[in-house]
Amino acid sequence: MSVFTNVSELQARTWLKQYTIGALSKLEGIVSGVENTNYFLTTTHGEFVLTLFETLTSRQLPYYLDLMAHLARHGIPSPLPIADIQGSFLGELNGKPACIVTRLSGRPAEHPDAEHCAEVGELLAEMHLAAKSFPLHMNNWRGASWWKTFVPEVQPHLPGDEAALLLSELEFQLRQKHEALPRGAIHGDVFRDNVLFFENRVAGVIDFYFACDEVLLFDIAITVNDWCVSPDDTLEEGRVRALLQAYDAVRPLTAEEHEAWPAQLRAAAFRTWLGRLGYAHFPQSGEMTHTKDHTHIRRILQRHIQTGDGLKSIWI
Amino acid sequence: MSVFTNVSELQARTWLKQYTIGALSKLEGIVSGVENTNYFLTTTHGEFVLTLFETLTSRQLPYYLDLMAHLARHGIPSPLPIADIQGSFLGELNGKPACIVTRLSGRPAEHPDAEHCAEVGELLAEMHLAAKSFPLHMNNWRGASWWKTFVPEVQPHLPGDEAALLLSELEFQLRQKHEALPRGAIHGDVFRDNVLFFENRVAGVIDFYFACDEVLLFDIAITVNDWCVSPDDTLEEGRVRALLQAYDAVRPLTAEEHEAWPAQLRAAAFRTWLGRLGYAHFPQSGEMTHTKDHTHIRRILQRHIQTGDGLKSIWI
Repeated sequence: MSVFTNVSELQARTWLKQYTIGALSKLEGIVSGVENTNYFLTTTHGEFVLTLFETLTSRQLPYYLDLMAHLARHGIPSPLPIADIQGSFLGELNGKPACIVTRLSGRPAEHPDAEHCAEVGELLAEMHLAAKSFPLHMNNWRGASWWKTFVPEVQPHLPGDEAALLLSELEFQLRQKHEALPRGAIHGDVFRDNVLFFENRVAGVIDFYFACDEVLLFDIAITVNDWCVSPDDTLEEGRVRALLQAYDAVRPLTAEEHEAWPAQLRAAAFRTWLGRLGYAHFPQSGEMTHTKDHTHIRRILQRHIQTGDGLKSIWI
Repeated sequence: MSVFTNVSELQARTWLKQYTIGALSKLEGIVSGVENTNYFLTTTHGEFVLTLFETLTSRQLPYYLDLMAHLARHGIPSPLPIADIQGSFLGELNGKPACIVTRLSGRPAEHPDAEHCAEVGELLAEMHLAAKSFPLHMNNWRGASWWKTFVPEVQPHLPGDEAALLLSELEFQLRQKHEALPRGAIHGDVFRDNVLFFENRVAGVIDFYFACDEVLLFDIAITVNDWCVSPDDTLEEGRVRALLQAYDAVRPLTAEEHEAWPAQLRAAAFRTWLGRLGYAHFPQSGEMTHTKDHTHIRRILQRHIQTGDGLKSIWI
């Protein structure tokens, strides 16, 4: 099922002539990523990442590439898409839409502590502030309308208790009102894999292909669900506090966001669970075989439902 | 005569609230630069340079800042100007136009060899290619019309032989025709100070405040006059060849450029000489006291005039 578009050194060398980033020194495939083909591309100028898009189209891609460029312009350590001589971020290579972005240094924090969580909280708030002036729009194609069509499709494949959880959570989420919550462009996928640290500071945030217009709190909830959870699937107070305080110092959270927090934590876990069920039960052509465990995020959702308040009391 | 606008930590801390690059960690004045005040600015995100412009105005500055942003967008290792929350590169601090740009790593090559010259030749050609799509324009305010007014002003201050050289070279330069030479945005100041190397590769090119629309060959000539000259003020063949070959591999030089090379080398030395005479004899308020020796570049000009062909024979 794995699709990986091969790029030869000769092809890369030729393609680079449309750019002003030097000549090819080294081309090295990256065996990770769920929906794109990635290469580390070293030139006489520096280090870049070459991406061929297996599923996203030339119509969708400008949103993501322009968002990265917009954030980099505001000092967010996101990859900087490189324009070719014609001024375009997007080209075509081997029949696929393709782009080059700068390669960021640093590596993910696999076992983040409160300090890492504070760093990522600050980063997230700054991304939200910087994205305020971003002019393009993208619907959340993994939002409520997708939930409504996807839950009936996947539910028959699940054991009875999980199917029941899916249906009841869908019902709960569809009852929530979001009108009072600040919205904007969100990253949508600030998992530990996608944040690079160098000397305990954030050095990069990557993989913007889940970005969309959404409730900002939803982005925080996605992040907290991945960064601040203990081995027993409950929230770890110290890390949650560090992340939220650092976020709040940059963009103060509102009373409405405080109110909506427990439901947003559940929504974020629900979205991630659904996504992983999708990869597990309906792998599409053009997707890599690296699917992720979906039982862990389900247990987190269950814990959120049981404990109820999402540590609301520790909010600033 | 030295003007250096002081910025307090409190001012910097407050000013940073308009940006999304983290909170202030350290502010450190840089005692160099002829026309701007510069600080190294370290934040919780990373390292930046804060510049206050002492002589350039808010009307002129967008050209330089947008050019840096344009080149960075094309993968040129130029500083990336950081936009504030309103989306603007340019603010005001202590009554002066001010901006923040990324701080590049690396250090200048004080004694460049042929390999360094090849690196800078490639960089220069890529800047010229990348700048082709840059939409803004800036006249060369140190071009022929300035020469015509400045030579009569400075000439009385010089010893007889130097005054004579100044007048005869002006006359020679005004006779040259440039219509057939490719033009575009040039850096205008690719001296060794302004190129940063890391592990023998170009890691940065800085100080774009001489950039303007000019004959591209003039930019190469300015560079060769600084990078490829021996202690006896003559061109060093190995370095000139390395620089021009690397340039030509990216943007092939034309027959007309070959023809114009000796005169452009003289023009570049003449421009630099005039600039340094200006700093020496007419220091302006708002300029730092660091003026540069102007006798070395005069001797280079004299050598060009004596030898005549600018090593034209070694062109590719």
